[in-house]
Amino acid sequence: MSVPLIIDCDPGVDDAIAIWLALASPDAFDLLGITTVAGNVPLALTQANARKICERAGRTDVPVLAGCPRPLLRALVTADDVHGATGLDGYPFPEPQMPLVSLHAVEWLVSTLLAAESPVTIAALAPLTNLAVALTMAPEIGDRIEHLVVMGGAEGAGNITPAAEFNIYVDPHAAAIVMAAGLNLTLVTLDVTHTVITTPARLERLRAIASPVAEAAAALLEHYGAFDRQRYDTPGGFLHDPCTIAYLLAPELFRTTPAWCGVETAGDFTQGKTVIDRYGVSDRAANIQL
Amino acid sequence: MSVPLIIDCDPGVDDAIAIWLALASPDAFDLLGITTVAGNVPLALTQANARKICERAGRTDVPVLAGCPRPLLRALVTADDVHGATGLDGYPFPEPQMPLVSLHAVEWLVSTLLAAESPVTIAALAPLTNLAVALTMAPEIGDRIEHLVVMGGAEGAGNITPAAEFNIYVDPHAAAIVMAAGLNLTLVTLDVTHTVITTPARLERLRAIASPVAEAAAALLEHYGAFDRQRYDTPGGFLHDPCTIAYLLAPELFRTTPAWCGVETAGDFTQGKTVIDRYGVSDRAANIQL
Amino acid sequence: MSVPLIIDCDPGVDDAIAIWLALASPDAFDLLGITTVAGNVPLALTQANARKICERAGRTDVPVLAGCPRPLLRALVTADDVHGATGLDGYPFPEPQMPLVSLHAVEWLVSTLLAAESPVTIAALAPLTNLAVALTMAPEIGDRIEHLVVMGGAEGAGNITPAAEFNIYVDPHAAAIVMAAGLNLTLVTLDVTHTVITTPARLERLRAIASPVAEAAAALLEHYGAFDRQRYDTPGGFLHDPCTIAYLLAPELFRTTPAWCGVETAGDFTQGKTVIDRYGVSDRAANIQL
Amino acid sequence: MSVPLIIDCDPGVDDAIAIWLALASPDAFDLLGITTVAGNVPLALTQANARKICERAGRTDVPVLAGCPRPLLRALVTADDVHGATGLDGYPFPEPQMPLVSLHAVEWLVSTLLAAESPVTIAALAPLTNLAVALTMAPEIGDRIEHLVVMGGAEGAGNITPAAEFNIYVDPHAAAIVMAAGLNLTLVTLDVTHTVITTPARLERLRAIASPVAEAAAALLEHYGAFDRQRYDTPGGFLHDPCTIAYLLAPELFRTTPAWCGVETAGDFTQGKTVIDRYGVSDRAANIQL
Repeated sequence: MSVPLIIDCDPGVDDAIAIWLALASPDAFDLLGITTVAGNVPLALTQANARKICERAGRTDVPVLAGCPRPLLRALVTADDVHGATGLDGYPFPEPQMPLVSLHAVEWLVSTLLAAESPVTIAALAPLTNLAVALTMAPEIGDRIEHLVVMGGAEGAGNITPAAEFNIYVDPHAAAIVMAAGLNLTLVTLDVTHTVITTPARLERLRAIASPVAEAAAALLEHYGAFDRQRYDTPGGFLHDPCTIAYLLAPELFRTTPAWCGVETAGDFTQGKTVIDRYGVSDRAANIQL
Repeated sequence: MSVPLIIDCDPGVDDAIAIWLALASPDAFDLLGITTVAGNVPLALTQANARKICERAGRTDVPVLAGCPRPLLRALVTADDVHGATGLDGYPFPEPQMPLVSLHAVEWLVSTLLAAESPVTIAALAPLTNLAVALTMAPEIGDRIEHLVVMGGAEGAGNITPAAEFNIYVDPHAAAIVMAAGLNLTLVTLDVTHTVITTPARLERLRAIASPVAEAAAALLEHYGAFDRQRYDTPGGFLHDPCTIAYLLAPELFRTTPAWCGVETAGDFTQGKTVIDRYGVSDRAANIQL
Repeated sequence: MSVPLIIDCDPGVDDAIAIWLALASPDAFDLLGITTVAGNVPLALTQANARKICERAGRTDVPVLAGCPRPLLRALVTADDVHGATGLDGYPFPEPQMPLVSLHAVEWLVSTLLAAESPVTIAALAPLTNLAVALTMAPEIGDRIEHLVVMGGAEGAGNITPAAEFNIYVDPHAAAIVMAAGLNLTLVTLDVTHTVITTPARLERLRAIASPVAEAAAALLEHYGAFDRQRYDTPGGFLHDPCTIAYLLAPELFRTTPAWCGVETAGDFTQGKTVIDRYGVSDRAANIQL
Repeated sequence: MSVPLIIDCDPGVDDAIAIWLALASPDAFDLLGITTVAGNVPLALTQANARKICERAGRTDVPVLAGCPRPLLRALVTADDVHGATGLDGYPFPEPQMPLVSLHAVEWLVSTLLAAESPVTIAALAPLTNLAVALTMAPEIGDRIEHLVVMGGAEGAGNITPAAEFNIYVDPHAAAIVMAAGLNLTLVTLDVTHTVITTPARLERLRAIASPVAEAAAALLEHYGAFDRQRYDTPGGFLHDPCTIAYLLAPELFRTTPAWCGVETAGDFTQGKTVIDRYGVSDRAANIQL
């Protein structure tokens, strides 16, 4: 039985890989829609990129929606140093032809969740603005979320500041709202995603598939890997976002534990840090798995 | 020519007076609707109270909408010590018969503002959650707001903490979002509203009007004044929210000056404080009048 | 019977007036010593200035000591826009001849307080670094402080930021330490000192005294008043620091009330703000008078 | 040639091991003195414990001094759940007979450093209050510190809160002062000390030495290990403080890298966190090695 799934994202190269991974698993997922938000690049690009990604996979039937064009309080910070100015640098996609659904992503999230026959799983690959706004407007949607798998945060070093990971840093207030909403939430942090690397050998195997998606994916990842290779001296880039879909497809590849997680919104050096207690150092109750 | 007006509120006794003041000035205002939010009391009460207030004035034609049931990040703090458990203690209103508009107040705000023929004035008498969420979802509504008059904040002492006024304290993050949105914003702070007091003589004159609204208003204000009389040793309660409508009706009664205002969201003792620079102590550009 | 007094200061023009006011009242005060700290100008200047001020009054017998050359955590901010580059711009003092006591002011404070026959009054006219360090090293000195009168803080607008007064802002952590030390502490805030203005008529009367001190004082205040005249459109400068000595000499000129005061060290816009509760808005116990 | 060394500590079991390790290496170190501070247990105990430790090693010649009895701003938090109510639970030391040097540790630190023929190395095993106060009073001592090796902080999980290590958490403001002082500072964090574990086999070898110090050390560590065994499921306790002395004795056992470190003093969940940038994620210049 397939899992009803919504992907909330800001494509972005690793978002693209995550979406294609989900689309490649039609028995596993019933993809209800893709909601987009400002993050890796501005919203005008992320919503267009989501459509390009669907079209490349021949899936123009997937509803794609545009959400919030900016974080709650902070000015938007983007990651075009990683993803390029288009967000999908490395492969020359044509302009998308499939239309954007005209509803706001937040309205669609609320109405879709409330109308769904059974609770829905959400993979969140971006700043959590859309979800935070939806939960503020209609907290009752929390009961309609079967499972929220978030790519975000870090137990150790961050990647946008020494303390914070990009998705959480861009909208720490949204992350704090989502983290406190009492959801069944699995957090996939940098500590996990930094172990999933696009080595040259893996890119070679990807190219060998020779499908339209594989061709574009390999080209994107070739470009995308440059940043991590230089900063971290790795053989390639980190596949952050695809880990969420991989976890839903094959949880046996991951080891999880319940923990408490708080999002710092107030520090001098720690804004956007996910503070995690996996050793019971505090007496706070677990609110996530990671 | 009448001003197209939306009142965003959390009735609350002084909200009631403000609404009735606007309804009593049909030549001045074209009241497009009343949006409600959690604040003085929970949302289930504020939206019902807004309808009771309209019905008492015989204005069942005014659209009343329910918005966000909670602040963005903070847990809801209410003021039932001031307004009573119902939010309108002191007068026995019947249950409202007029319906609530089924749309979410935030969606209605966005669509109403975008569809309005000319920019709309908003009087905000409550925590600013609805407006902050609307501005996050659709920043372009900013251009459709002619004037935003907010009751909130304090230059001197606060009334819910030593530093903060209630409306801003309840959702400081929302206030920060609104304050940074580049609007034509007039802030009516406690420093002003603490000069507008329901003395016994004024209540007597109100009762003498002998209309249904005046009767209810006097009864409400009699109950409402007890809190301020006790804490501040005044002859009656402070008419916070009506000052916004009074300012729109008779700006000549007020003296305003441009200033910079920031909302503190991070301090140990100052969360929700409106920090105001009217002397040019900093070099920050003015973003409000007060 | 005279009050044993220590003046902790950072001269600065208004510090000079305060010191001369104390020296002019030998029946009221037994001035045990003057401790200096970095503040209005760096320590090398404040300690020299304190000696110049004593010499001008013919009081080379007063021990003058140098204390901490910097605040605890923050980088030193000075106020040479108010006091001039020397800290005493406006009158050409000769270089001081009387020696600096070689002991560190903090060590002298601790040993003097512990050795004093009866508890000592302290007038603090500067960032509170010296006192905070002394209280951290030897909290038992708290019992040897009869009365601490601090010029610092603001209930309303600040003068170095919109929220903060200079002395507290320069070392908010020191102020927080002192405020929490359980002392008999009277805080003289800007709300008071902004009512004490060096009008031209008052300067005229000062000049008419025609003593060496009066001559220097009038010259200093003439220069010093320019800043406030420009910013606040007043007839002259505010006599902040002398209010502390005036209060000790003539408390009947002031009206005080117990209140709680907390010093904000953590906010985005409010660092160094003195948050004051004079209405019992919080349930925190009074720790100061003001 | 031996290294002139000062140990600043709050004994504490692992402090005891560190001190004995230094005393066991007379060719390596010229131990100028031991300064104590409030930390693992209150100052009255830490200064007495330091003397017990010296006496047990027959080294009553080492100057032992008492410093600050409390952190700068925060109320003292102790670790008697780890070290026992005495700070040295597990071995019945007699009351110490050797006297405490009567000077305050901070005054001694300043005068000793300024008078030393060559710059001095300091091993800091405790909250950094003494050093922070000394550096505030007399920043010029910075040039007289050859090397400061601090046990404190964590890149990953903390041990007193999810984010913070005990020594830094107890006085984060002191740590921030020291970290910003431009010293040659090596930070030994939990990430290192959690790899140095008192296994049963190691305790057995320690007991086999059969000296007075070894006997006491083994007894103390047996008791001390219980806490970590229970929380972390390890075979014994972590030897935090001795790592500093071990690093000075045998740096080849450690791998260090320059990094930037900031101490968070302002966050909701992160007070006392050492934020570390070893990947150049920020453009802040390195101020430590770790």
